[in-house]
Amino acid sequence: MVKRISFGNVDCPVARALDVIGDWWSLLIIRDALDGARRFGEFQNGLGIAKGMLSTRLRNLVESGVLEMAPASDGSAYREYALTEKGRGLFLVIVALRQWGEDHLYQINEPRSLLVETETGAQVARLELQAQTGRPMTWSDTRVVRPAS
Amino acid sequence: MVKRISFGNVDCPVARALDVIGDWWSLLIIRDALDGARRFGEFQNGLGIAKGMLSTRLRNLVESGVLEMAPASDGSAYREYALTEKGRGLFLVIVALRQWGEDHLYQINEPRSLLVETETGAQVARLELQAQTGRPMTWSDTRVVRPAS
Repeated sequence: MVKRISFGNVDCPVARALDVIGDWWSLLIIRDALDGARRFGEFQNGLGIAKGMLSTRLRNLVESGVLEMAPASDGSAYREYALTEKGRGLFLVIVALRQWGEDHLYQINEPRSLLVETETGAQVARLELQAQTGRPMTWSDTRVVRPAS
Repeated sequence: MVKRISFGNVDCPVARALDVIGDWWSLLIIRDALDGARRFGEFQNGLGIAKGMLSTRLRNLVESGVLEMAPASDGSAYREYALTEKGRGLFLVIVALRQWGEDHLYQINEPRSLLVETETGAQVARLELQAQTGRPMTWSDTRVVRPAS
């Protein structure tokens, strides 16, 4: 495991989020869970991760309420890992990572997976930050306000 | 550093993005850079990270084109780290992490920092995934399509 100082109590939601899922294996596990993986072996085959490392991360994700243990969907004796509502909430984090990767880490025409609308097969639109009024915003239109201490 | 297998060549943009910034310190460095930090000492004070760990991560972020070295903005001899366009592109990843943290990791009324529109002071709107038509979508409306191999 990564040695880390817990930032769980600080007032920054970004730091607190990273305290739970800020480990690249954890984010890849969540990606695969969003993509349908449920069994230990499915995660292991998809990620090529050592069993012990995978066990630790799955346990941490269950402890933090991102995944939950569920009976096997086919009625067998296997236990499965299912995303909770909290876990499914990470979908936009994964989409944001994907869109940044698409923008900056691929050559033109280099093969890559696509996130599409199931119904139409069309690629999803780009995420966009908006003001409450619906006006599109960029980073430079925003600032972070800290709570009074 | 975290020991990792490079996923840089795979066809998943999420994995490739995490190969560059999938380390919680790196994401916190990027958060602080988006929030105005530019000097080594500013990152160090903000994060409480050991010098060697910070050096390694800053160097990696410069090598991967997320940060670039720039002369000090006040004309002094200090060197500063400035976000590139590629680095600023990570803003939505940080916003997505923030909004997930806000939703799931805070008690009601627990103090936390807020991301606001500079002009109005109003909180930014929630990120939302949309189809190309503008229709709001959730995770279950989407699927990942892999390239033909």
